[in-house]
Amino acid sequence: MARALELARRGLYSTHPNPRVGCVIVADGAVVGEGWHVRAGEPHAEVHALRQAGEAARGATAYVTLEPCSHHGRTPPCAEALVAAGVGRVVAAMQDPNPQVSGRGLARLRQAGIEVEVGVLEAEARALNAGFVKRMERGLPLLRVKLAMSLDGRTAMASGESQWITGAPARAAVQRLRARSSVVLTGADTVLADHARLTVRGAELGLAPEQAALALQRPPLRVLVDGRLRVPLDAPFFQAQAGPALVATLAAEREAAYRAAGHELLAVPGEEGRVDLPALLAELAARGANEVLVEAGPRLAGAFARLGLVDEYRIFVAPKFLGSSARPLLELPLERMAEARELKIRDIRAVGDDWQIIAVPAL
Amino acid sequence: MARALELARRGLYSTHPNPRVGCVIVADGAVVGEGWHVRAGEPHAEVHALRQAGEAARGATAYVTLEPCSHHGRTPPCAEALVAAGVGRVVAAMQDPNPQVSGRGLARLRQAGIEVEVGVLEAEARALNAGFVKRMERGLPLLRVKLAMSLDGRTAMASGESQWITGAPARAAVQRLRARSSVVLTGADTVLADHARLTVRGAELGLAPEQAALALQRPPLRVLVDGRLRVPLDAPFFQAQAGPALVATLAAEREAAYRAAGHELLAVPGEEGRVDLPALLAELAARGANEVLVEAGPRLAGAFARLGLVDEYRIFVAPKFLGSSARPLLELPLERMAEARELKIRDIRAVGDDWQIIAVPAL
Repeated sequence: MARALELARRGLYSTHPNPRVGCVIVADGAVVGEGWHVRAGEPHAEVHALRQAGEAARGATAYVTLEPCSHHGRTPPCAEALVAAGVGRVVAAMQDPNPQVSGRGLARLRQAGIEVEVGVLEAEARALNAGFVKRMERGLPLLRVKLAMSLDGRTAMASGESQWITGAPARAAVQRLRARSSVVLTGADTVLADHARLTVRGAELGLAPEQAALALQRPPLRVLVDGRLRVPLDAPFFQAQAGPALVATLAAEREAAYRAAGHELLAVPGEEGRVDLPALLAELAARGANEVLVEAGPRLAGAFARLGLVDEYRIFVAPKFLGSSARPLLELPLERMAEARELKIRDIRAVGDDWQIIAVPAL
Repeated sequence: MARALELARRGLYSTHPNPRVGCVIVADGAVVGEGWHVRAGEPHAEVHALRQAGEAARGATAYVTLEPCSHHGRTPPCAEALVAAGVGRVVAAMQDPNPQVSGRGLARLRQAGIEVEVGVLEAEARALNAGFVKRMERGLPLLRVKLAMSLDGRTAMASGESQWITGAPARAAVQRLRARSSVVLTGADTVLADHARLTVRGAELGLAPEQAALALQRPPLRVLVDGRLRVPLDAPFFQAQAGPALVATLAAEREAAYRAAGHELLAVPGEEGRVDLPALLAELAARGANEVLVEAGPRLAGAFARLGLVDEYRIFVAPKFLGSSARPLLELPLERMAEARELKIRDIRAVGDDWQIIAVPAL
């Protein structure tokens, strides 16, 4: 199963909206087939592995990181393929949270007399597809907020001067975070201040050429929260090379102009003249977004934090002090200690001269 | 030498103003004597080791973490003791930076026909006594600034509400930082706001009983920077059980009252009506302070940072957000990115649920 998870991870940058899945077929203690899901619309992991195994699949054990599917989607059901191949035993890391499957794939296998086991390395399998799981179970994407700050918790000087707080290895890590996401979400402040395009740039990913190529074939949708349509259509963000963008705003004015430029305008009006962020996330999930990466300024990132919508913070810390006049990490005005947002630090590691902290809200 | 350094570290909390020193005597591949310096005024590491070795020291090799002393201080010179014991070879990790010694001890040994080597594990030996080395070489103590902050770089709510940002293991680590220091330095803001006493509390050190007892026998001098004598003599800080304190101020008024309460008032007037911090540090070094721990609010800690006097930051990070209205880590108003203070992160490690970052100014 560890090998199957390793295979599944190869799809980190390319399977969305599908989950990342790997499959290993073992006969008489030897691996006879391996496969992983590459892209939505293409064969699932099991099909690749069965093809490689050929006749050797008969009576063999298939290790798969997710319950084989039972429904006809863009490809025929994998459970049927496993039955047809005469596999003797299937070990799945986890049940498929997809309501169209959720146990039906395993039931189909058992019905065909195949021995079935489920729950091997389940935590690892769930973590690999945390966004897909959340979308299936709760109709919302996993929300990851990327922040870059100095050691004293500042993101930019008071003047707005900010670029290049962190070094090249940290920026490559951010590129990979973008590439694995279904959506990269930002706000008008960031796009206006930094001329940000929020694209994935192959050369900066720091990945092997084949994986970089896969990532570039499935770039994340860029979503701009711009309630008052402050970002002009001639901004770098909207350039044709940057790809299509979705603009979440208060009222769908000037829709034709956005459409003509290759972009989509979506009205998601909320309270107090703000874009309704929970509704926007639900809409993104409905469109198949598993992981959403927020790369925004303290205002928009702070709004997600205030609303309790954040699943994970990725904080890149540059080893410097920007001083007490500089801009805060998050606009999150709290008055009393009891209101402090408790977190759990999952991981801290060096990324070049910078450090990456992964923190999740403590429940 | 690694063993000698291990022995030397046992004196971490008790040797100051002396350096921490360990000694191992090896004859025919076997350890025949070990020793470490416990307290100023008591025998040096070499003497303990020679006593244990007895006759076996003749012709043996002595590994010592610092050049043996050549001068009559509170104890007779160790170089003479090694000569008298008939040691055949001396390996020293580093030369003594003390201008009263600096090579004379080694010269004395060579003169007596003893083979001498120097520089084995020198970096480790220097790091263990970085404060002593700096005092000897530059007439200033090593300045370590302890900070406790939330993940968004805040120390307290705007109201001042602040206590217990970090958990018990982080507080124990701070207790150990105090215990190893010659001086714990704070400001009037902190003492007034938190009723801080800045004492070493044996039960909170998290050390083995013997080491805790040693630490308590040599508590650090508590130094209060209080330019306008705002902290009243009946504050907890000045209570008799807290021990004597040195108050650095602008003018030595009411000296008698402080003396009567067991404390010392020191006038160190600087520019703009502030205490002259570099002069204060020089005075502390002159009094034998190797390591000074600053535990102060953003104003005083920020002043040391602005003046470039900080050798090391120990930042305890609590996994929570205190929000953007909360107080900054350091009062350090910078306008342009080019003024940012560059640091190097030496170490990040978990301390209970919190994290300790060790950062040093990048040169």
